[in-house]
Amino acid sequence: MIGYLGPVNSFTYLAAKTFYVASELKPFSNVYDLFEALSLEKVEGIVLPIENSIEGSVNLVMDKLIDANIHINKEIVLDIKMSLISKNNKIENIKKVISHPHALAQCRKTLKSELGKYKEIQSLSTSNGVKELAKLDDSHAAIASKDAIYGDLNILLDDISDNPGNETRFIFVTKSLNVQGFHNKSSIICSAKNDHSGSLYDILHEFAIRGINLTKIESRPSKKQLGTYVFHIDFEGNIENIKVKETLAILKYKTKFLKLLGSYYTKEKK
Amino acid sequence: MIGYLGPVNSFTYLAAKTFYVASELKPFSNVYDLFEALSLEKVEGIVLPIENSIEGSVNLVMDKLIDANIHINKEIVLDIKMSLISKNNKIENIKKVISHPHALAQCRKTLKSELGKYKEIQSLSTSNGVKELAKLDDSHAAIASKDAIYGDLNILLDDISDNPGNETRFIFVTKSLNVQGFHNKSSIICSAKNDHSGSLYDILHEFAIRGINLTKIESRPSKKQLGTYVFHIDFEGNIENIKVKETLAILKYKTKFLKLLGSYYTKEKK
Repeated sequence: MIGYLGPVNSFTYLAAKTFYVASELKPFSNVYDLFEALSLEKVEGIVLPIENSIEGSVNLVMDKLIDANIHINKEIVLDIKMSLISKNNKIENIKKVISHPHALAQCRKTLKSELGKYKEIQSLSTSNGVKELAKLDDSHAAIASKDAIYGDLNILLDDISDNPGNETRFIFVTKSLNVQGFHNKSSIICSAKNDHSGSLYDILHEFAIRGINLTKIESRPSKKQLGTYVFHIDFEGNIENIKVKETLAILKYKTKFLKLLGSYYTKEKK
Repeated sequence: MIGYLGPVNSFTYLAAKTFYVASELKPFSNVYDLFEALSLEKVEGIVLPIENSIEGSVNLVMDKLIDANIHINKEIVLDIKMSLISKNNKIENIKKVISHPHALAQCRKTLKSELGKYKEIQSLSTSNGVKELAKLDDSHAAIASKDAIYGDLNILLDDISDNPGNETRFIFVTKSLNVQGFHNKSSIICSAKNDHSGSLYDILHEFAIRGINLTKIESRPSKKQLGTYVFHIDFEGNIENIKVKETLAILKYKTKFLKLLGSYYTKEKK
């Protein structure tokens, strides 16, 4: 069983479905429960957003990744598109729109020009908003992925984001580190030996001199010691690559803490 | 008027209250509306979470900061503490607990040992959960800041987080750049001239050789061009400091884009 940040039809669910069939997937309502289920081996793996999400907290996910038995196994980049969904198929009857507060805000300009004046109703998630439609009358519509429709629901408008091009990254996390097969990306977490001004610079030096492209870097406050930081670094390349091997071998000596989070395949889906 | 990420009694409200009186503050339901209100000059400034938040999306805030007319004016670090709040003052009668999904998860172990078995009810925010209590019977309690209580509500349990020490940073954002007065921290956003492997390394070089301590670094995907990044860098020191001035002068030539986000005072409140 694979856990994901639910409910059913959340964007995380859609990301999870690119790797698994629906019957293998189990929804969890928050990031804490997902990591607990993985740690207690109630699920074999979990799927979570790691960038730009309106679901869950990306910060929380990043902090949880530091735990010893947690590894990234796959990554998928989804282009998040919002649609207007309703039981009704007449757009002129829509007077109320329900969704997550961020989705409501992201589509406001487009919907104002399409619907005129309408009332916003906040829901816990975009997919919760779609679920609520069943209980509401025909003047209601929801903003969600068009893949979230079921039964007698209709798509009234497609791709209604005011600023299209909302990519979100999702990761598939397991307890075991799996570096077999084709991988094009690796992730590490490390902390510097001293918190002097050049400590991160010293770490990046090893990537720079070997021409290894970094795809993400982020410092996060360490939970263990106030005022200290851990660095999350993603870079291009397989762990079997000689330059990557060299870099990590040297970083082992240059850092106080170094964790290979994973070497994995990243997939883009439009 | 100062906008903040509401509702009243949210953690952002508590952060805003360390600088302003309640009558100056106006709640907004999401990050988009806050930035729009600032841009249309409906408010003079806005207060938002910038790290570790269970309210709103930190990623979204970071991406909005890139806009030309947006500057950080102040920062406050709050220690987020959760309490169990109820109309009831008998803890043994509590059978249902309402709060934001993350708050419910953060306090689960403590509450299980204090309450035994209880049912969780999800709300849009911790302060929404407290508001709901008015409509619910005495078997309900909410998880929120103890500063969120009003009327006949009681604090049943204090500091109930399973893992205490939850610091969140909040920033006060205005349209004007104000570098007067006492400042101990500065923030920039920049992008490299080329996306080669050593571009960030080249930028950090200027800080390292001058002994300027970085307090945060994060790369964010650029919204303008796929595969390119902008860097958010926070560092210790006032913009009037000669070493800081030198660094920024050189970065102007070394980067494609450089924005001084602010030089400001950061305050810690326990």
